[in-house]
Amino acid sequence: MAPVLQSDACSGQYHQVVNSINSDYITISEYILLRIYQLGIRSIFGVPGDFNLNFLEHLYDIDGLEWIGCCNELNAAYACDGYAKTCEKMAVLVSTFGVGELSALAGVAGMYSEYSPLLHLVGTSAMRLKNTDKKFHHLLSGSKTYEAPDHYLYEKVAANFSCAQGSIDLDADKACSTVDRVLREIHRCLRPGYLFLPCDLTEMKVPTSRLYEPLIVDYVPQISSRSTAVVEAILQKIYSSQNPALLVDYFISRCKMTNTLAKLLSKLDGRVNVYDTFMGKGLVDESHAWFVGTYQGALGNGDVARAIEETDLVLRIGTFDVEMNNGAFSAKLQDTNVVSLSIDSVSICGELVTDVNMRDVFEMLVEQLDVERVARSRKYEISRPSRPTGNEPLTMNDLRTHIEQSLTPNDVLIVDTGSFMWATGTIELHGAKFINQFLWAAIGYAIPATLGACIAKRDSGSPGRVITVEGDGAAEMTLQEIASLVRYKVDPVLYLLNNDGYTIERVIQGPNRSYNDIATKWQWTEMVRCFGGGKIGQKIASRSDLSQLSIGAGLQLLELLLPKFDVPEELTDLLARGKS
Amino acid sequence: MAPVLQSDACSGQYHQVVNSINSDYITISEYILLRIYQLGIRSIFGVPGDFNLNFLEHLYDIDGLEWIGCCNELNAAYACDGYAKTCEKMAVLVSTFGVGELSALAGVAGMYSEYSPLLHLVGTSAMRLKNTDKKFHHLLSGSKTYEAPDHYLYEKVAANFSCAQGSIDLDADKACSTVDRVLREIHRCLRPGYLFLPCDLTEMKVPTSRLYEPLIVDYVPQISSRSTAVVEAILQKIYSSQNPALLVDYFISRCKMTNTLAKLLSKLDGRVNVYDTFMGKGLVDESHAWFVGTYQGALGNGDVARAIEETDLVLRIGTFDVEMNNGAFSAKLQDTNVVSLSIDSVSICGELVTDVNMRDVFEMLVEQLDVERVARSRKYEISRPSRPTGNEPLTMNDLRTHIEQSLTPNDVLIVDTGSFMWATGTIELHGAKFINQFLWAAIGYAIPATLGACIAKRDSGSPGRVITVEGDGAAEMTLQEIASLVRYKVDPVLYLLNNDGYTIERVIQGPNRSYNDIATKWQWTEMVRCFGGGKIGQKIASRSDLSQLSIGAGLQLLELLLPKFDVPEELTDLLARGKS
Ligand SMILES: Cc1ncc(C[n+]2csc(CCOP(=O)(O)OP(=O)(O)O)c2C)c(N)n1
Ligand SMILES: Cc1ncc(C[n+]2csc(CCOP(=O)(O)OP(=O)(O)O)c2C)c(N)n1
Repeated sequence: MAPVLQSDACSGQYHQVVNSINSDYITISEYILLRIYQLGIRSIFGVPGDFNLNFLEHLYDIDGLEWIGCCNELNAAYACDGYAKTCEKMAVLVSTFGVGELSALAGVAGMYSEYSPLLHLVGTSAMRLKNTDKKFHHLLSGSKTYEAPDHYLYEKVAANFSCAQGSIDLDADKACSTVDRVLREIHRCLRPGYLFLPCDLTEMKVPTSRLYEPLIVDYVPQISSRSTAVVEAILQKIYSSQNPALLVDYFISRCKMTNTLAKLLSKLDGRVNVYDTFMGKGLVDESHAWFVGTYQGALGNGDVARAIEETDLVLRIGTFDVEMNNGAFSAKLQDTNVVSLSIDSVSICGELVTDVNMRDVFEMLVEQLDVERVARSRKYEISRPSRPTGNEPLTMNDLRTHIEQSLTPNDVLIVDTGSFMWATGTIELHGAKFINQFLWAAIGYAIPATLGACIAKRDSGSPGRVITVEGDGAAEMTLQEIASLVRYKVDPVLYLLNNDGYTIERVIQGPNRSYNDIATKWQWTEMVRCFGGGKIGQKIASRSDLSQLSIGAGLQLLELLLPKFDVPEELTDLLARGKS
Repeated sequence: MAPVLQSDACSGQYHQVVNSINSDYITISEYILLRIYQLGIRSIFGVPGDFNLNFLEHLYDIDGLEWIGCCNELNAAYACDGYAKTCEKMAVLVSTFGVGELSALAGVAGMYSEYSPLLHLVGTSAMRLKNTDKKFHHLLSGSKTYEAPDHYLYEKVAANFSCAQGSIDLDADKACSTVDRVLREIHRCLRPGYLFLPCDLTEMKVPTSRLYEPLIVDYVPQISSRSTAVVEAILQKIYSSQNPALLVDYFISRCKMTNTLAKLLSKLDGRVNVYDTFMGKGLVDESHAWFVGTYQGALGNGDVARAIEETDLVLRIGTFDVEMNNGAFSAKLQDTNVVSLSIDSVSICGELVTDVNMRDVFEMLVEQLDVERVARSRKYEISRPSRPTGNEPLTMNDLRTHIEQSLTPNDVLIVDTGSFMWATGTIELHGAKFINQFLWAAIGYAIPATLGACIAKRDSGSPGRVITVEGDGAAEMTLQEIASLVRYKVDPVLYLLNNDGYTIERVIQGPNRSYNDIATKWQWTEMVRCFGGGKIGQKIASRSDLSQLSIGAGLQLLELLLPKFDVPEELTDLLARGKS
């Protein structure tokens, strides 16, 4: 058999697997699964249904792919987001026609918004029935009872939330190209793509030989006169600055350019002050000598803001210019002072370039940068905000301090949308990875994302633990996924903030309204046991409980009893600004 | 103040409320809420969010509207479906921009498919920000990072799953008309409609006087030469039949025409055999002397099928010709032998009429029917299927018998999609209402729908209990809504079928595959207590446990331990047919 080229870290195994196929033809299902396998993915998330069972059967034909069954499809999508953000690989979600795919949609939309790569494979109605007027389950009945249903409606809807869509039909050769195209696009755009596989085409034969050519999904930087000119222009801006600063942002991790960042950091070390954004947190270690802080405009640390705002050039790498990254639009950087590299564009002091992007030029820029020509900035020393350490009761501030003290470099911190999120703008991560969904900001994200993050860590054999913080209102949205944490024997630490409802909404509007209450008194510490885990959680009711906390091995649920109106001071500040 | 006309049963109260308003202007939020109130609705379901809080504040301005906070938006949509189907009123769902509305979408799609009326009110981004390029939370980031977001994208998506959409803008007078139009369309089509209310327009003033004119939503039959001709044609068909039969179907309840049906049944009594469909079950009492059975084509009772298939005219009222109602396409009624009335059309022995519908002609037909001219059919006596009564273990058959014996006329039976669903094709309801979602068929429907049904019963002061049957796989999808059953102090009986996973999928494909397993050993009987209910459920492990079962007051969770592969014989038959 023809040799398989090395296309990624796992190609050795892929090579073995493909070469062991003894037939000239395989099914399209196996083709899809082997492409997934080739990309180094070992776990597939989802929920079965009549329309995807045939496809799922083929999972067992391929050694080394594991099914991670989730409790529902929205949770499965969130798990995929956690997976993709943790290991920077594409996640794979399998759902069923209509009921399943639409249940996942809000989660897919979140991944689209936040540039998290996903293959969403939907098992659809049989090809041979797509043109009949039979009204069977999961089909949306049309506007008239006597009209034939539209089997492609959900595909049209999905197009709004994805960068590529592929509908498998009877043409086997085209099918392989469709699969490859969608996978390539997902990696180019780093966003969800859809494959729609009719349930009667899962056994369609395609040539095994298509697999000999590995699918190249790695981004190939476009080196052209255009990109070299852009690099040259940026270098000139840097060299002519008196006081440049580096602002580290979100797309560095999404685009897997942390190595390039590391090179830049070491080149600039001792010359240039370094900042990060909220959604770029974790890319620079706070212990870096020239790290000043997280820039959040008028929110967060005022000294940090003053420092970066007075520089004459901000080199912003991985720019994602969204609410959470610009201090809710309070950031005051002037376009003319900013050189920005983003996933799909570059902006040079106000001039937007859309045919060149970060992935084309960042590496070249770092290579070519002549550090001797970079001005030595004055080093800013910002005093770390003193963390209030009052008496009882326990507050979110205490939790922040506690988490800062317990994070280690291989950990992953996941924080759901809610009051505590605002405490994390200035949290010190000590090298841990920070995963959230703060732009899309759907509550309930964290528990399923924790599942995804744990599976990603397990698959890549990476040490450290997943630490998750979630409000009670968020937790009740997706609670049952705790059962999957038990089922797949993963060991995250869940901090469950019991503050009697939707506190963040209470401080915005209706502090005592029934709409901000959540359902009665849940027995949070019982939950793991109820879901088959056999372990009782711990209740943490005071500062001393928290300081004496010892966290054991295995899945942990820690319920923190917090005052109903306690929020981090950052949130109080934000709301005060909004009102003034 | 001008008097308010009586528009429905609640207009007396509405009159009082509106007349007590002391101002010439009210907010658009109050306007919407008072319209809802006028329609006799007393409960509003949903989840709060930044973009709907301002609107929700106005809930407290109106006495007699209660907020039913759900754990998440999909559950809230299912609750709305259960509510609408139980009391045949429009349900109201409030969600927040993007994250909330999209999370609910799959449930809304189910309501669209099954003609369940819903007002989905979405609090959207501020009007004054819709044309800016600010990227804040819940906005879908567009295809390029440097392009402005589309604030209307979700509205466009929703249009695929609703019969009417209204976007409130700065024009106050138009706003009232928009609200009225959407509410009218929802009632005309009996399907979901959307109102999008920007969060900065909730306080917009509209004239109170608009409320003096009540909103008429009742369907007004179109009496025309066309409809009278249709009635005449149908009567001729009936009179010339030797052996007519009546087939009672779904849209009779949706269109609130059970009184008309009752008139027809009493007119035809002693002459014509009566059948129902799966989704029409509960409209005719099985004790009706001429009731033959539920027609499910080749599924279900063969004698029932032979009987109806040999008649020369089937008068099918409320036709919904979908999979569950035609025995998975095995029904053998000839179009030329069927007169069918549906929600949007009439069909007379093969001739489709789309400008006249059931609501136009059914009442007229019954009025004009000269029963003396209707042939006396031979009365079919079908022996009821003998229910197998073997020994242990406990099976789904036993549960069917148990439920048949315990249902009373005011009860509501809710059954989720799954194996047990197939046992309900022939279940005897004894006057109870039967609620399901068997066309859309999303699992996880039943627990939230139970909440909705209980609230509907409570609001209308109707006696009887809600009895719910749900598989473990379905239950894990939406489990947390048990907490709302506790919170709102309702008293359904939940039969939880613990058969160790997705049994219905196991018998279709992959009996022992991991994709058909669900998460580990849940402690089902602990769930109510965990969600704050303080009560332990009962475990039913054997036939004698079931026969000795005594069901107490208040919320009950009954866990039935069933064999992993036990399914009703109807499902076994169906699959055997599919394979042959
Ligand atoms: C899916 C979804 N629904 C609703 C919202 C609106 N929302 C944002 S934060 C929040 C409350 C969060 O409460 P909780 O998780 O208890 O955190 P707390 O602020 O109380 O710590 C809500 C309802 C949302 N962001 N996402
Ligand atoms: C939202 C959704 N996801 C997936 C499916 C596919 N599906 C149909 S039935 C079923 C299994 C139901 O299992 P369970 O509720 O345990 O019932 P059982 O057949 O075991 O009694 C699944 C996964 C669906 N119908 N809806």
